Amino acid sequence: MRLSRYFLPILRETPKEAEIVSHRLMLRAGMIRQEAAGIYAWLPLGLRVLNKVCDVIRAEQDRAGAVEILMPTIQAADLWRESGRYEAYGKEMLRLKDRHERELLYGPTAEEVVTEIFRASARSYKDLPKNLYQISWKFRDEVRPRFGTMRSREFLMKDGYSFDLDQAAARHSYNKVFVSYLRTFETLGLRAIPMRADTGPIGGDLSHEFIILAKTGESEVFCDRAYLDMPVPPPSVDFDDVAGLQGVVDSWTSHYAATDEMHDEAVFAEVPEASRLSARGIEVGHIFYFGTKYSTPMKAVVTGPDGQERPVHMGSYGIGPSRLVAATIEASHDEAGIIWPDAIAPFDVALINLKVGDAACDAACAEIQSALETAGLSVLYDDRDERPGAKFATADLIGLPWQVIVGPKGLAEGKIELKRRASGERETLDPVDLPARIRRV
Amino acid sequence: MRLSRYFLPILRETPKEAEIVSHRLMLRAGMIRQEAAGIYAWLPLGLRVLNKVCDVIRAEQDRAGAVEILMPTIQAADLWRESGRYEAYGKEMLRLKDRHERELLYGPTAEEVVTEIFRASARSYKDLPKNLYQISWKFRDEVRPRFGTMRSREFLMKDGYSFDLDQAAARHSYNKVFVSYLRTFETLGLRAIPMRADTGPIGGDLSHEFIILAKTGESEVFCDRAYLDMPVPPPSVDFDDVAGLQGVVDSWTSHYAATDEMHDEAVFAEVPEASRLSARGIEVGHIFYFGTKYSTPMKAVVTGPDGQERPVHMGSYGIGPSRLVAATIEASHDEAGIIWPDAIAPFDVALINLKVGDAACDAACAEIQSALETAGLSVLYDDRDERPGAKFATADLIGLPWQVIVGPKGLAEGKIELKRRASGERETLDPVDLPARIRRV
Repeated sequence: MRLSRYFLPILRETPKEAEIVSHRLMLRAGMIRQEAAGIYAWLPLGLRVLNKVCDVIRAEQDRAGAVEILMPTIQAADLWRESGRYEAYGKEMLRLKDRHERELLYGPTAEEVVTEIFRASARSYKDLPKNLYQISWKFRDEVRPRFGTMRSREFLMKDGYSFDLDQAAARHSYNKVFVSYLRTFETLGLRAIPMRADTGPIGGDLSHEFIILAKTGESEVFCDRAYLDMPVPPPSVDFDDVAGLQGVVDSWTSHYAATDEMHDEAVFAEVPEASRLSARGIEVGHIFYFGTKYSTPMKAVVTGPDGQERPVHMGSYGIGPSRLVAATIEASHDEAGIIWPDAIAPFDVALINLKVGDAACDAACAEIQSALETAGLSVLYDDRDERPGAKFATADLIGLPWQVIVGPKGLAEGKIELKRRASGERETLDPVDLPARIRRV
Repeated sequence: MRLSRYFLPILRETPKEAEIVSHRLMLRAGMIRQEAAGIYAWLPLGLRVLNKVCDVIRAEQDRAGAVEILMPTIQAADLWRESGRYEAYGKEMLRLKDRHERELLYGPTAEEVVTEIFRASARSYKDLPKNLYQISWKFRDEVRPRFGTMRSREFLMKDGYSFDLDQAAARHSYNKVFVSYLRTFETLGLRAIPMRADTGPIGGDLSHEFIILAKTGESEVFCDRAYLDMPVPPPSVDFDDVAGLQGVVDSWTSHYAATDEMHDEAVFAEVPEASRLSARGIEVGHIFYFGTKYSTPMKAVVTGPDGQERPVHMGSYGIGPSRLVAATIEASHDEAGIIWPDAIAPFDVALINLKVGDAACDAACAEIQSALETAGLSVLYDDRDERPGAKFATADLIGLPWQVIVGPKGLAEGKIELKRRASGERETLDPVDLPARIRRV
């Protein structure tokens, strides 16, 4: 992609309304634009990151056996009356009426809708287990939306819902998602720690929040440092291995880890002092097992092997991709800008032409772009008529993992420069060696 | 994907509420489920088709130089007051208020939001041309939603918006989209005819609807049969070739073609009788050039080469993917079910195991699935314990382009059967030849 044909509205000034670094950098890098309080448009660069985060989430969900669907954003109030949550949910629910005065709402979550979908066709234990997930926009009418896409009102959420015959099977479904989330965050370059959590308006007995540590986190968290280097299962993990998966979950819940609401100072004091870690955290995932809380009132039942009807055991599982984009920046940036992990970088390479209009530079850049793209790498080619300093600043700000710098002096010797954004390391090399050099990482 | 692990709620009965064949088939094939009047959930099979339609649209938009963004579903009423459309839009707009009583709406289209995004950064003619598009959910509160996803209230739309310095440049942007839409429909296996159209609430001087002919179309259309076999430009078409593109558009608008509202019986009578075609049509795309209708009141201005500020010339361009899924079925089905064009089939192959539990059949199916997937083909493997008749009926109903039938008799001779869904043609072949045989098409 040539930058001259792209839409990258970089801001020169640091926006005053942005309180945290990810919000500032997302605005400055032209990733998002606020359209109303807590409501953002995703500009091209931001959307590419958001889509990549979704791709990572989707790959892990599919691997774990979940099946993707897409429920509507607008839901019928009557369905929420069946579960008893319509009145209970409070002011965070955006309620509305259509032209026929029918009560609708913009879904903040979808337990009711998915239970309705499931009960419409499922009849037997043979239809189980099922895990249906979607990645879709939700709305929660926060009193005070802030921190950009970290706590916005309209936000993207992957929400999954599992259906099982009994508690033991439901526990396995819970464990599958637990492990798939560990893998998702690992792929995103984030260290997320599962913590026992309050179940809030979703309800249920068992719940974990996945928390990443960051100075700007909203809540205080307490955990054992053992989590910081605990190994995450590899892609080859067998999601059908009930005991194996339980073992992973057991080890990932064996040490102390609690959010503020669940914190127990006395128990925490038993952790050796050198291992005690109290820090700020950002919630990036939340999983729940709530048994028959929805299936009983909504009559989502199946016939068991014994011929008896029983309500299914359910869980629900959320990850917020739009929040994860911000959380990743909180965890990975420096003074000059964003530092994208390779897995979710909007482009792999920033190609910088130091002298646009110079025949040799233009030709070399065109060739390099073509060679890199042929090798499966994505390139944002800065072909603007700007001074080098501005181009370097833009490249550092938007944080693509690699910068390829092409100037007349180097070219005279048949060389270009390659810079790794994260480390700042530079090397000089022959352009033909570029694709292999970058692919090596 | 194994069907036993998938979620495919086939309906045995034909749903009474469905008036047209696409609606009936989408419900029966477990593609969608109605959650409220005109509001649908997309189940796994339907979502795969919808995503493929979006992929086709996206590829053509990117090729034509448009850049993808994503605007929020919820928009501020004040922005629509700037353009003067807030009061004018009428009851199809879903209006709502948040907890602070601020007026919001669920976007039925996004001219205002995209103009706001553009004006925030664009300063000079050097920032032009731009075409920003999104694929996102819209809401139009139809009085009488019907025909399933053909005329739903919550629907997916690709909407693009072009920004140019003057009318001539804007005309080229219009032509780019015109040609990209011709190519999009061609790839989807649909013959769409551009017809002069009324501009309605979007406004402007120049507008074409892209119409496909179908018995169940909502409106009457009139055109010259010459359009039925007019060639569509190849993928290599040069979108920067101003004259070349105008030539394509000229030839695609050289014959008579009009919707009911724009129909002129006298002019139509001049078409040779053998070429006159009057039929029912489904609108699958609509493009508009409306000059400075939004840029003037909303002050979206740039400085021209002469240093003078002027409002940009704009157009907007819509294709409805959720409607296209239904329209494709209207155009491509038979008594037994859907017949997907290869480009948007949810899976390439239905793999039918006639005797689940038979060691040879199970092993052969596992091998075939693996071989096809390795060859880049997607497979839905019917591993259910069902009688062959039910499996054949399901395969025909869901309409995957190929059926691979594996039974003990054939296997004894080292053979399996391959059926092409569209033609019904069958052939017997060695399983190892399957990937190459299917890839040949």
